[in-house]
Amino acid sequence: MSPGESLRRVRERKPLVHQITNYVVMNESANATLALGALPVMAHAREEVEEMVALAAALVLNIGTLSPHWVEAMLLAGCAANERGVPVVLDPVGAGATAYRTETAKRILDEVGVTVLRGNPGEVSTLVGADAEVRGVESIGGTGDPADLARTAARELGVIASVTGAVDHVSDGETVVAIANGHPLLAAITGTGCMSSAITGCFLAVADSPLDAAVEALVAFGAAGEDAASGAKGPGSFHVALYDALAALDPDTLDRRARVS
Amino acid sequence: MSPGESLRRVRERKPLVHQITNYVVMNESANATLALGALPVMAHAREEVEEMVALAAALVLNIGTLSPHWVEAMLLAGCAANERGVPVVLDPVGAGATAYRTETAKRILDEVGVTVLRGNPGEVSTLVGADAEVRGVESIGGTGDPADLARTAARELGVIASVTGAVDHVSDGETVVAIANGHPLLAAITGTGCMSSAITGCFLAVADSPLDAAVEALVAFGAAGEDAASGAKGPGSFHVALYDALAALDPDTLDRRARVS
Amino acid sequence: MSPGESLRRVRERKPLVHQITNYVVMNESANATLALGALPVMAHAREEVEEMVALAAALVLNIGTLSPHWVEAMLLAGCAANERGVPVVLDPVGAGATAYRTETAKRILDEVGVTVLRGNPGEVSTLVGADAEVRGVESIGGTGDPADLARTAARELGVIASVTGAVDHVSDGETVVAIANGHPLLAAITGTGCMSSAITGCFLAVADSPLDAAVEALVAFGAAGEDAASGAKGPGSFHVALYDALAALDPDTLDRRARVS
Repeated sequence: MSPGESLRRVRERKPLVHQITNYVVMNESANATLALGALPVMAHAREEVEEMVALAAALVLNIGTLSPHWVEAMLLAGCAANERGVPVVLDPVGAGATAYRTETAKRILDEVGVTVLRGNPGEVSTLVGADAEVRGVESIGGTGDPADLARTAARELGVIASVTGAVDHVSDGETVVAIANGHPLLAAITGTGCMSSAITGCFLAVADSPLDAAVEALVAFGAAGEDAASGAKGPGSFHVALYDALAALDPDTLDRRARVS
Repeated sequence: MSPGESLRRVRERKPLVHQITNYVVMNESANATLALGALPVMAHAREEVEEMVALAAALVLNIGTLSPHWVEAMLLAGCAANERGVPVVLDPVGAGATAYRTETAKRILDEVGVTVLRGNPGEVSTLVGADAEVRGVESIGGTGDPADLARTAARELGVIASVTGAVDHVSDGETVVAIANGHPLLAAITGTGCMSSAITGCFLAVADSPLDAAVEALVAFGAAGEDAASGAKGPGSFHVALYDALAALDPDTLDRRARVS
Repeated sequence: MSPGESLRRVRERKPLVHQITNYVVMNESANATLALGALPVMAHAREEVEEMVALAAALVLNIGTLSPHWVEAMLLAGCAANERGVPVVLDPVGAGATAYRTETAKRILDEVGVTVLRGNPGEVSTLVGADAEVRGVESIGGTGDPADLARTAARELGVIASVTGAVDHVSDGETVVAIANGHPLLAAITGTGCMSSAITGCFLAVADSPLDAAVEALVAFGAAGEDAASGAKGPGSFHVALYDALAALDPDTLDRRARVS
């Protein structure tokens, strides 16, 4: 596993990452993808998602602002991605907050082969049937140990589970990797969870394994958050500096910045 | 009335503010809500809005980029909010510009118990049947005295009327409060009116009365605008500084910064 | 032709520019329009677009995140614009990437009198039936000489063709104007192509001829990009500085900054 090597590949190959995501963070996810070095494409029409995903090196599905046509498009795109071997990230935003979100996330997990599930503890707890406290789209706290949660989710759902929080936990059902990169300001702006899913898609397009990709993406995004926080005066200036920091991430130093255990 | 005390409550209670708003400002409204200290949730599907609003401490309806499914969702959410005693802010963006916007705003006012109507002079004038000059979604000028307009709108529409401009006027139909906080740069970026509606929702979730909430929100947002303007080089840097300023607002000094009469 | 004089008119007349654009860049296009000095309005409902465009001085159609209702709205708005002599900009985002985008762009060109077609070499090549390499919504390269492409597109499609890249080329089918203003950082953030279409709409509302408008818009936007790049640390700070730079553009010096041939 080498976040630096994968970042170098992202910048060399510029993989196209097809994202069907929510209205709140579309611009932010596209800019984070570009700043890292990949190419985003946002396309949600049922008329074109299968064709678009065929051009892509990864697909990111994010249910942050759902409605029925978008759900259909996510399922169409997800199945087309599966047929072509394009890896799929699912961000189950707000699962646990409403039945519609919970059921949609479960339906995608049932009907699509999801490679990486990237969510907060409340969302992931909901999807494995554990108690969860979700407040709108914020996780107020999952139940129990997040390392256990990641391992359980990976086993039960057949995915790489990427459970993010103050410390992130990624598991394939056996191994659990904890990532301590990041900064509290990442929680002060909307869409950083969604951005981390987008960046997971970027790494998935180039990494040696999905587990590596999920871990490396969180190392890279967390390190950029650390850099961005250094001169920030608050959430606004942090948000701006985050794109600068993603673009300035140095592949040569990233591996030794990883706080992984 | 104490904007500082209400701001302190927002930060302590972190109320969930459900927003059904327009595509242009979704990210900005969510980030302004977070920067102030509350939790935003954007959800517009008819399948989930009633369940989502039941979790919320306030609902904000904003008609800035309308279409029929969204109007239905606003009505469903508004009625569910009324049943549960969740206060409702309506931002009638562009009322007066097209019949669809005017009729939709009127329909929401008819079918939903709106707590605070937050609009510009042109929009509010339109809704009380006065002449108004609206240019797209910009108010070029209401007719006559804005204090009278706020009082008339409050009486005729049975709402707290919050009419914003260079000086804002808030009325419950009897009292009219004028708020002189703010800065001309707030008019140089899109969505600051929408943000002020979102922040009105945040204060409504914690304040002692809806009149207080509407006034306090404009004091807080105006003060943040003043702070943001101090180092800004133009609309871009002002926009960024506005989130920093909202997050940095000091409850201890906010009351004496209020320019209220 | 005088970009400075047209910019002065934009600021004096504050034309309303109706934009039916994609979710990714709505905020950014609105803020770029405001920063330049014009008034944006975003409205996409079939119920109101004809009425809204009747209030506008220019219409911008952008197919970046398509779906059927939005296509219908673009056609309704475009035809209403034609009836009233309101100039129309088409930004065929992603034409060539999927059949749906290519066909929609062609359908708009067939059914609406488009004044200016503003696209990248891949998109414009697609629309004139030339080979093109498009990667998602990024042009990896058109075929052949961009000056020829602009001239051919203008002739075949009956539009002013505005083909943007490191050097932009604008043609009415006879004359080809090359514009060398701009900066590589404009390619580092999403939506700068869309912003240049929005700004083309602003200039079209006031300029002496559509050819002049298309050229002047790219001079102004490119000059703002140059100014924004001077202090930028990366794509995030460049993005913020771009709005400051648009607002600070000086009509008195803009003409001599034009790198036009």
